[in-house]
Amino acid sequence: MSLLVVGSIAFDSIHTPTEVRENILGGSSVHFSYAASFFSGVRMVGVVGEDWQEEHTQLLTERGIDTSGIEIEEGGKTFRWTGKYHSNMNDRDTLEVHLNVLETFNPTLSEESSRCPFVFLANGSPTTQLKVLDQMTGPRLVVADTMDLWIEIERDQLKTLLSRIDGLVLNDSEAKQLTEEENLVRAGQKVLEMGPKFIILKKGEHGAMFFSKNETYVMPAFPTPDVVDPTGAGDSFAGGMMGYLAQQNNFDPKTLKEAMAYGTVVASLIVEDFSLDRLKGTNREEIDGRFNQYRQMLTF
Amino acid sequence: MSLLVVGSIAFDSIHTPTEVRENILGGSSVHFSYAASFFSGVRMVGVVGEDWQEEHTQLLTERGIDTSGIEIEEGGKTFRWTGKYHSNMNDRDTLEVHLNVLETFNPTLSEESSRCPFVFLANGSPTTQLKVLDQMTGPRLVVADTMDLWIEIERDQLKTLLSRIDGLVLNDSEAKQLTEEENLVRAGQKVLEMGPKFIILKKGEHGAMFFSKNETYVMPAFPTPDVVDPTGAGDSFAGGMMGYLAQQNNFDPKTLKEAMAYGTVVASLIVEDFSLDRLKGTNREEIDGRFNQYRQMLTF
Repeated sequence: MSLLVVGSIAFDSIHTPTEVRENILGGSSVHFSYAASFFSGVRMVGVVGEDWQEEHTQLLTERGIDTSGIEIEEGGKTFRWTGKYHSNMNDRDTLEVHLNVLETFNPTLSEESSRCPFVFLANGSPTTQLKVLDQMTGPRLVVADTMDLWIEIERDQLKTLLSRIDGLVLNDSEAKQLTEEENLVRAGQKVLEMGPKFIILKKGEHGAMFFSKNETYVMPAFPTPDVVDPTGAGDSFAGGMMGYLAQQNNFDPKTLKEAMAYGTVVASLIVEDFSLDRLKGTNREEIDGRFNQYRQMLTF
Repeated sequence: MSLLVVGSIAFDSIHTPTEVRENILGGSSVHFSYAASFFSGVRMVGVVGEDWQEEHTQLLTERGIDTSGIEIEEGGKTFRWTGKYHSNMNDRDTLEVHLNVLETFNPTLSEESSRCPFVFLANGSPTTQLKVLDQMTGPRLVVADTMDLWIEIERDQLKTLLSRIDGLVLNDSEAKQLTEEENLVRAGQKVLEMGPKFIILKKGEHGAMFFSKNETYVMPAFPTPDVVDPTGAGDSFAGGMMGYLAQQNNFDPKTLKEAMAYGTVVASLIVEDFSLDRLKGTNREEIDGRFNQYRQMLTF
């Protein structure tokens, strides 16, 4: 297995304008892995509490995800997040966060994990992300995600991280925060100057922008009328993208662009239901069908 | 000349986060015509006051725009609009509006104008837009723009208009207001049910969405780091689009999509300076160059 993800595993409680779901499976590495599993094998590294059920492990292993890196902390509780979406289904407020076992998460990689050529450091503190990176043995491609909290409280560690990774994925608002630049093209270019070879700036329902030394481009989101729960869209975007890159065993500009498109398509599926429910019902054939539709949509 | 536009001619005062410009040439039909002039001849119909200068007419006629439909009202003053952009350069507040000669604008078309096959009813009251439509002799393609004010105060007339036009161009927020639907795909589809054969939903810096019975697609904005003044982006988008359709003398789905792309490209140019300043310095060759870059950007 060539793809490794280190990140959160969570039980989410989601409030949308029309529905509330309590304690459903979520977390960055869960959404990432499930999305990536349609393209390549994935190794997950993370921590859960005693409230983690065998059925959760099974859901992941059924998709060929290697869960041996999931540590179950005795007496602990799994990370919990409660969020409420605004009526536009794009903006949201965090109502509650209980870090629980995530508070002391100190990932230790197995030898197999440390040799993975493709690595995704899902949203987590840059300090933890750097600790993972220190354990890697010559990875070919390292991509990280980050968020507003770390830009605020661990800016120095984040800058160190940026000098050591190949790609960074972040939200448009976070790119503005990091660079103090309102124009997204300028913001993306400024983040690029901080070290990574490419930057992917996520714009939620408006798609994503890509920046490298030689390229700047925008890919719109795939238009779906059925947005039920946007949670995990960003992580499943990254999962589809990294899964495709790992499968192709390549990350040249052409492959990266195809990977962005696959990420876009998988993200458009996950939002059509809560948790992993929509992805549970899909397969590579449906994904490829929507990918072709997406390509057709952008051809003129 | 096969393309007619009826709409406002204005002197704008623009406040951006870094600069203020007073009384610069603007208005929906000015931005539209100038953009369209890179593709086809245009007839402008509108009204100005005694403050209108010969140099303004000359600027338009130099681009081959037929200004014989611009009425100069004795003793009147041209419509004035003052707007202030937020730091994101996407949202704006209207600080002042002086309708002036626009208040009693009652467009009367010449015989040549009434026979134009391609018509754009730029933003104006639906009552006025319907009056123009009543004077047309069998146009082939009628596209209209509208805004929040008319949705609020002339909803019935707007609905009548929607049943008589081929295409409608409106902002995302206006589509939500008109349909009471937050999801843009659903909003677009609902507007389509109100009569037009196609709907173009403008999303500002995030591009535009297209809806017809058989197609739904999104085209991102062309990413430019140099956004100086977004005023007129929507109207020049429409101008580039309608100009291309008039030039091709066709509006089949393929041509409409190319036209959307040309509109996107022209809009990305106009925002790079105030008023028509950026468009004054461009030509069809530069537009085609950016069009090819845009197409390349969306090819994977």
